[in-house]
Amino acid sequence: MFDEVKDKFRDECGVFGIYLNKTVYPDEAARNSFYGLYALQHRGQESCGLAISNGEHILLRKGMGLVSDVINQEVIEDLPGHLAIGHVRYSTAGYGGIVNTQPLVIQYLQGSMALAYNGSITNARQLRHRLAEGGAVFQTTSDAEIVALLLARYAKDCLENALAKTMVDIEGALAMVIMTETKLIGVRDPWGIRPLCIGELNGDYILASESSALDTIGARLVRDVEPGEIVAIDRNGLRSMQTVKPQGKAHCIFEYIYFARPDSTIDGINVTYARRELGKQLARECPVEADIVISVPDSGTSAALGYAEHSGIPFQQGLLKNRYVGRTFIQPTQQMREMGVRLKLNPIREIVEGKRVIMVDDSIVRGTTSRNIVNLLRRAGASEVHMMVSSPPTKHPCYYGIDTSSREELIANRMTPAQICQYIGADSLYHISEQGMYEALGGNGNIFCTACFTGSYPVKIS
Amino acid sequence: MFDEVKDKFRDECGVFGIYLNKTVYPDEAARNSFYGLYALQHRGQESCGLAISNGEHILLRKGMGLVSDVINQEVIEDLPGHLAIGHVRYSTAGYGGIVNTQPLVIQYLQGSMALAYNGSITNARQLRHRLAEGGAVFQTTSDAEIVALLLARYAKDCLENALAKTMVDIEGALAMVIMTETKLIGVRDPWGIRPLCIGELNGDYILASESSALDTIGARLVRDVEPGEIVAIDRNGLRSMQTVKPQGKAHCIFEYIYFARPDSTIDGINVTYARRELGKQLARECPVEADIVISVPDSGTSAALGYAEHSGIPFQQGLLKNRYVGRTFIQPTQQMREMGVRLKLNPIREIVEGKRVIMVDDSIVRGTTSRNIVNLLRRAGASEVHMMVSSPPTKHPCYYGIDTSSREELIANRMTPAQICQYIGADSLYHISEQGMYEALGGNGNIFCTACFTGSYPVKIS
Amino acid sequence: MFDEVKDKFRDECGVFGIYLNKTVYPDEAARNSFYGLYALQHRGQESCGLAISNGEHILLRKGMGLVSDVINQEVIEDLPGHLAIGHVRYSTAGYGGIVNTQPLVIQYLQGSMALAYNGSITNARQLRHRLAEGGAVFQTTSDAEIVALLLARYAKDCLENALAKTMVDIEGALAMVIMTETKLIGVRDPWGIRPLCIGELNGDYILASESSALDTIGARLVRDVEPGEIVAIDRNGLRSMQTVKPQGKAHCIFEYIYFARPDSTIDGINVTYARRELGKQLARECPVEADIVISVPDSGTSAALGYAEHSGIPFQQGLLKNRYVGRTFIQPTQQMREMGVRLKLNPIREIVEGKRVIMVDDSIVRGTTSRNIVNLLRRAGASEVHMMVSSPPTKHPCYYGIDTSSREELIANRMTPAQICQYIGADSLYHISEQGMYEALGGNGNIFCTACFTGSYPVKIS
Amino acid sequence: MFDEVKDKFRDECGVFGIYLNKTVYPDEAARNSFYGLYALQHRGQESCGLAISNGEHILLRKGMGLVSDVINQEVIEDLPGHLAIGHVRYSTAGYGGIVNTQPLVIQYLQGSMALAYNGSITNARQLRHRLAEGGAVFQTTSDAEIVALLLARYAKDCLENALAKTMVDIEGALAMVIMTETKLIGVRDPWGIRPLCIGELNGDYILASESSALDTIGARLVRDVEPGEIVAIDRNGLRSMQTVKPQGKAHCIFEYIYFARPDSTIDGINVTYARRELGKQLARECPVEADIVISVPDSGTSAALGYAEHSGIPFQQGLLKNRYVGRTFIQPTQQMREMGVRLKLNPIREIVEGKRVIMVDDSIVRGTTSRNIVNLLRRAGASEVHMMVSSPPTKHPCYYGIDTSSREELIANRMTPAQICQYIGADSLYHISEQGMYEALGGNGNIFCTACFTGSYPVKIS
Repeated sequence: MFDEVKDKFRDECGVFGIYLNKTVYPDEAARNSFYGLYALQHRGQESCGLAISNGEHILLRKGMGLVSDVINQEVIEDLPGHLAIGHVRYSTAGYGGIVNTQPLVIQYLQGSMALAYNGSITNARQLRHRLAEGGAVFQTTSDAEIVALLLARYAKDCLENALAKTMVDIEGALAMVIMTETKLIGVRDPWGIRPLCIGELNGDYILASESSALDTIGARLVRDVEPGEIVAIDRNGLRSMQTVKPQGKAHCIFEYIYFARPDSTIDGINVTYARRELGKQLARECPVEADIVISVPDSGTSAALGYAEHSGIPFQQGLLKNRYVGRTFIQPTQQMREMGVRLKLNPIREIVEGKRVIMVDDSIVRGTTSRNIVNLLRRAGASEVHMMVSSPPTKHPCYYGIDTSSREELIANRMTPAQICQYIGADSLYHISEQGMYEALGGNGNIFCTACFTGSYPVKIS
Repeated sequence: MFDEVKDKFRDECGVFGIYLNKTVYPDEAARNSFYGLYALQHRGQESCGLAISNGEHILLRKGMGLVSDVINQEVIEDLPGHLAIGHVRYSTAGYGGIVNTQPLVIQYLQGSMALAYNGSITNARQLRHRLAEGGAVFQTTSDAEIVALLLARYAKDCLENALAKTMVDIEGALAMVIMTETKLIGVRDPWGIRPLCIGELNGDYILASESSALDTIGARLVRDVEPGEIVAIDRNGLRSMQTVKPQGKAHCIFEYIYFARPDSTIDGINVTYARRELGKQLARECPVEADIVISVPDSGTSAALGYAEHSGIPFQQGLLKNRYVGRTFIQPTQQMREMGVRLKLNPIREIVEGKRVIMVDDSIVRGTTSRNIVNLLRRAGASEVHMMVSSPPTKHPCYYGIDTSSREELIANRMTPAQICQYIGADSLYHISEQGMYEALGGNGNIFCTACFTGSYPVKIS
Repeated sequence: MFDEVKDKFRDECGVFGIYLNKTVYPDEAARNSFYGLYALQHRGQESCGLAISNGEHILLRKGMGLVSDVINQEVIEDLPGHLAIGHVRYSTAGYGGIVNTQPLVIQYLQGSMALAYNGSITNARQLRHRLAEGGAVFQTTSDAEIVALLLARYAKDCLENALAKTMVDIEGALAMVIMTETKLIGVRDPWGIRPLCIGELNGDYILASESSALDTIGARLVRDVEPGEIVAIDRNGLRSMQTVKPQGKAHCIFEYIYFARPDSTIDGINVTYARRELGKQLARECPVEADIVISVPDSGTSAALGYAEHSGIPFQQGLLKNRYVGRTFIQPTQQMREMGVRLKLNPIREIVEGKRVIMVDDSIVRGTTSRNIVNLLRRAGASEVHMMVSSPPTKHPCYYGIDTSSREELIANRMTPAQICQYIGADSLYHISEQGMYEALGGNGNIFCTACFTGSYPVKIS
Repeated sequence: MFDEVKDKFRDECGVFGIYLNKTVYPDEAARNSFYGLYALQHRGQESCGLAISNGEHILLRKGMGLVSDVINQEVIEDLPGHLAIGHVRYSTAGYGGIVNTQPLVIQYLQGSMALAYNGSITNARQLRHRLAEGGAVFQTTSDAEIVALLLARYAKDCLENALAKTMVDIEGALAMVIMTETKLIGVRDPWGIRPLCIGELNGDYILASESSALDTIGARLVRDVEPGEIVAIDRNGLRSMQTVKPQGKAHCIFEYIYFARPDSTIDGINVTYARRELGKQLARECPVEADIVISVPDSGTSAALGYAEHSGIPFQQGLLKNRYVGRTFIQPTQQMREMGVRLKLNPIREIVEGKRVIMVDDSIVRGTTSRNIVNLLRRAGASEVHMMVSSPPTKHPCYYGIDTSSREELIANRMTPAQICQYIGADSLYHISEQGMYEALGGNGNIFCTACFTGSYPVKIS
């Protein structure tokens, strides 16, 4: 259970951009960006950063830690400006992180530019090699730097055109915000894999990975950036430009299952609604006789409520999550581990004792967490534990900006569902069907990237 | 909503004590105490501390911040011992806190002693004056120091007897753990106002404010310390001694309503169970036609589930709470506030839009948070908002260790329910009845302290 | 050489107090105290603290670290007041220090009081026992707490009278500042062992361990507090009161040799002047043929200049001290140690190569540092190294507030001068004579405590 | 006096490199680099960094603060390797510093490379523009990045050849260490403006800005890197390559006057020796009748000793420098400033009172510090104050990597010596003559860059 965090797929970034009316709000970009990034914190807790322009210069602050650790009142006051982009990041590597922190701010032939990237370039190695042959040097391992170097090669064009050319070079998943001293740009890859939406507040525009970041500052969701679309925002308003021809849609389906905040709406589908429908679909596909439905908090709760609603079996809070997590954590001894340490999740005996329990979770990655939780429920007296998973088995790694475990670690690659059920110690285990998942999300499976379930990758991997 | 934290009653402390078999676990008291305090973190986030004995010396570590900020691996290794007490604390004052941090470690005629206190001495002023006349000096404003000074006056007795005499001097609420180099003692006031329970693990004993701290280390709940009981634990096991004659029971009813962790069982009643019953009782007392039941997360959720269960109206997650809270927070401008900043709670439009909503919360203190939430729900499209409160109106301050607002700030003192309903902008507002509350908690109102509702204080206030 | 700091006697505290005209400087006590403590930083670098009164309340700030680490602009602004006392402290123990940090602020029968102590109570154990029998508890191991508890016993008297009675109880060395909400008090033990002086600035009074703290704030030195004198300063000015009858003078002679800042004047003797005279006396007592005189920086420099002046041999900077010392220090491997790591002191080959060198230092405690330095000089090519020490051999520990090594560690207890000379590898070694030391300091040995040299303790040690 | 630090020219960097025998010392590069950088700390206190290779990968640690703040035992253990370069840096700008911290580590066509730069490229703007036209982007404002980008353009050559070509492109002052995974390179500009020397330890090579960094790790000084020379060190030993033809020598003369550590020897001249000779020359050029010679510590002391030696007037410590400087500093009020706050320098009245004082300092930049010190001496009773400066008037800014004030701030540009003397309030003021300075340094003025005195810049400024 101590590896719980590692037993989930992990989103790697969130991006935010805002262009305010310079006359009305000359200094409000930083404050609004703080709120926006704060709302996107679940997309990356390792580091964050903020680049601000007052129309003339770009200033930058970034650091390791949560948004509220890095950006305080003093930082806000040091960053006057009406135009900003920000980034939250989770990274796989330990130290060295500060080098890869974003936004990346660079000087090039036309002035300054700041970039914040979410996603992953699948032909990064080839692009790096090509650029290096032209004399480029790399100071980071971030894909934002590749984009910056490509843009600089097309720098004699205007930035939108340079970006359009760059999009032809790049393969992979991309949701990106870019700013110069006077302009805010957003762009999304041709399949629309990673999310990016447009908000509006008093006539000013905002870009964000999720709509909940718009809610936070009181803005309304206008629409999502289209696959392959570039939107450019400056004093003249918002202009759109379609770059590479979209080849279909492939929105990351895992945003609905686990990554996104429940209060976000992405590409037209509300996340809480989607999760509840997934839970209902589970109940349709796999009715089980039981006394209570519980969830693995917090991510499994919406689906569990859906299961309860459709099945008529009452939802109860059978597992309690400890909310206080600080900087350090003392590892238990092996002996204590065996005694059943319950630091992050505690079953409530009064609820589960003697009960046939349906436990709903969003996914199983390596299986160790599920095994621990089932064990906790048994010790707390559950007479039966039926595990329901609101996603199909995850068998394939993601190459589009998500930190999945390696193929070998994905338990669904090594075991049949029956074996997994035995491994985790449940009475039964059921994953939602692929088709059922599509139906819960509106019926059309063709608009999603489902590579982690199906191995069918919309963008080829080199 | 930015004052949300201040718009709740607040528990002021949690205590923990452990006496391990010195031969088997010579160095494990600190690690176990870390887990125990971590599980009690909700009872105080301002500071914490840990005193450890190896049978010969008492070592102390304390500091401002969360348990996981103050106690790290290095601290654990610096504190070898089999006997420990710990404390988490929330305090009303800003700086100066470090002086009042507990445990308090003192030298007196018989050696060393560490004390950790939860509650409040109501005749503290008189006791301080009496002690000062005898030449005492006070270095803190904590009640633990008063107890220490009284114990020192009776120091020629053995510690249990000295404590029994001290209990005669003290009026108020008290749940306390004390340790010498070789002994662990727990004591509870004659009314049993503040909670304290006894756990057992492999034959060793633990004392804790709540049973969830026992779960965390794999210990089982043996029983609660009785009102007026002293329990002393040393190498010969546990001995009990009844001190001042209990005058009845007066367990703090607010522990069930809001303070305690849902997975704790206090004085025989499980907290989640109690909250769910309160919700059911609300549904019995005040049935409303509505489409959905939502809760103000997290504390209102159990009651909301109970309401839903009894009423048959589906429970849904209509409000999302942001989990990431860091060290600093940027205050919004007034304008942004008016735009409806939703940093900590965000309504989910897809769930509440066009719906008649029953919103369940545990209490209303000043009313400002409720007003903000109702407003958020309206903006998100709720057609009706009916607020259900799983406690009666709180009209009276607590003098027994809880930080309530002052009488003037308690909205129920200034307004009738109808006026409050209008102030918060709800379509209807209903508080559970006193009698209904008792019934939900098992029928007998005489075993609870209900002073904050009734003004009937079990211990006189000087 | 890495133990250099441990190879010196160490002063344990510095104290400072200021009483400003409340009308003219209502808020300036904290700022002035910062400067005063900053100037006394050499007397203790482990922790510091500041207590401030605005005439009604005493506020306190203290922490581990240097004055400039603990007291910043924000702290100054949080501590408005015209009356303050402060303390810098070095302590022998590692953690736990924060508990013993001063000033100690207490509540007692008459109100609040803050105390800051320099020195050591030699009958502390007896006093603690007597107080404990009366019911006292001790939260620290500082002597300030003993004084506070004694004062509280006499609390029905006015504070000056209570202090006079307390002085009768206490044996040992003491230079102390005390404040109430409205009064500043200074007191010195009957022998005047530890220093304390009175300054004046625009008619307001200051107390400080050394006169250099007065210079820092532009105040002038009025006089030293007399042995056994109490001075009380309030809105009516300064009053003096002689308590216990002084039995003679016994000013710590090591203040002149090493502890005090060179720019301080203590009990009528300027420190730099005294050190230079000690150097001259050394040259008189022990003329050696040599090419250059060098010092072990910084403390040996004044004496070296005196030696050079009297002998006519030129003074040169043969050893360079690295000024940058930070929070951590990487220990060298044994191999590097042997290679001659020169991190803190580096000989300058161009100055010492081929030269007969007289090296002047203030004292030899354990001998390891001297041995290392002589070795460095040899490697840098010095043809002869003659070590001159401006104090007699230190054979006896101090019990009056100085951290000397234990008797066994003092090399002069284990070896004859000839053996020490051989141990450190010098060509010759000479300590100033006792009589020569007195002459350099004005001729009268009877006014100094010379216990560390002579074993003749003015106050009996229990 | 609070601007003292700003009233000096400031060196901007120190560099260090070490290549150890991989078999014998596989992990010792980091520890040795710590000591080396620690010894170079006076060349830059704002930030520092360390890049390490184990022969396969380059790891990097850098941060704001002193060497001992950034590099601790844990860092050392995280950086195993036998090859390292390090950098200490002072920068003019406030925040943003972290971006410019060095070493700079980059990936390019041939692998990885780390660079640490001391000096300044005078044609940086032109080079940046030329590179940007080729598609380069800049992430920092450091000259190291320009070098890296130029090297990458020549990357098909071996690194030494690429560096030789790069040196043709660059104008300005440069002392640089570069490392790949397997090689250490040092290079110095064709005039040899900034210092760089070669050390040897057990057959392994070290590069450092100053020889004192070699002393620290027990290495011996082999020689200085020649102007325009590239030295490459790898498993086969050290190879030298002369690049651009040296056009003469122009060693920065201010290294001898102020920047370098007194125990360093640079381009054949020992710094302490040089300063003493400057002092003697001053005494020759400007004999004054006086009672004592004092210095402005620490940098003026060697010259003052030289003046004293030649003049026969005794040197005394008339000014005391406070050694304890921490993180924050409280600004005095204007009133206190006028009272004569003496926080960093305190005159010793007993030494200067009634005396005719010769005060020796190394330079006068803006004059404010000198004015404050003269004033302090007067208040302390000096009857006459004659200021002797061991450098000629500094009239011209440096463009070769030194932070001088702007031309307008240099007092010697605005005032005649007589006016400066009046401004600072001295009885007389004398600067060493240019010719006298050359004679003190060995007679040949042609080997130094003296642009700050003469305005004759060896490398043209664009």
